[in-house]
Amino acid sequence: MADALPVEDLAVADSPFLGALALLIRADDRYGAWDGKSDEQLLRPYVLTKEDRQAIPIIGNPDPDTVERLELFYKAVAYRTEKASGLMPSLMLKMHNEGFGWAVLIAGRLVVHSRHHRDIHRFGFPSRAKLAEEGETHVAAVLAMIEAHPEVARL
Amino acid sequence: MADALPVEDLAVADSPFLGALALLIRADDRYGAWDGKSDEQLLRPYVLTKEDRQAIPIIGNPDPDTVERLELFYKAVAYRTEKASGLMPSLMLKMHNEGFGWAVLIAGRLVVHSRHHRDIHRFGFPSRAKLAEEGETHVAAVLAMIEAHPEVARL
Repeated sequence: MADALPVEDLAVADSPFLGALALLIRADDRYGAWDGKSDEQLLRPYVLTKEDRQAIPIIGNPDPDTVERLELFYKAVAYRTEKASGLMPSLMLKMHNEGFGWAVLIAGRLVVHSRHHRDIHRFGFPSRAKLAEEGETHVAAVLAMIEAHPEVARL
Repeated sequence: MADALPVEDLAVADSPFLGALALLIRADDRYGAWDGKSDEQLLRPYVLTKEDRQAIPIIGNPDPDTVERLELFYKAVAYRTEKASGLMPSLMLKMHNEGFGWAVLIAGRLVVHSRHHRDIHRFGFPSRAKLAEEGETHVAAVLAMIEAHPEVARL
């Protein structure tokens, strides 16, 4: 994976979802290691080209850093949900072996999001723009679910 | 923990919940180690006297066998739910450190059961009768939740 940033990609400042994700990554930084880094640098590991992805073996369990990136992705969805609805969903991630996993976001008694993953080893997006788009799609789906069953989400 | 069984306790044959739990324990027995054991013997580790519980240290993470017993307890709740409603909830267990955990049962998009645990190290019941009673209480709560929001449970 090259360290160079594609200059033409979406700026973090132009996407509330990317901003939330960068914020959560910084919140996890207990040693100040990322103080000198830009938001774009912090999100760098989320961007994988097709070749990057193919170079990652899907044997055994995924790298813990990758699982953490997946968790932070969903936490950013939860964070954006809270901004829009006042409800902060909780994440539960059930990792199976070999990179299979099930992620759910729960608000009250409502499963506001449910997604099965495979090949988590290769979790990533072709660009920051695509990462932002995917994140916003998830947030929209969560908000629609809450709107459809508001009383269950507030139980 | 003594191996002797309190003879006056509830027989497994007299409780559908205890029967489900014994069945699930046997289903996990891939080596035939429990073929010669009675259902009462299989459920023995679920029964802890007050003294048994106090003798278990609550420092560090709980024993993996204890966590598995907790999981099977909830799977028995799910199994009994399926018998009564046709819906088989999925278990998600989020273990934190030091014996804290959050267990949820999910049917469709409905969280049919949600319970926070602490001191999981000491998970157990004073008797089989109490274990059965607690299990049935959980099943009744799950069924009431499904009845209150049937359309969400079937999403």
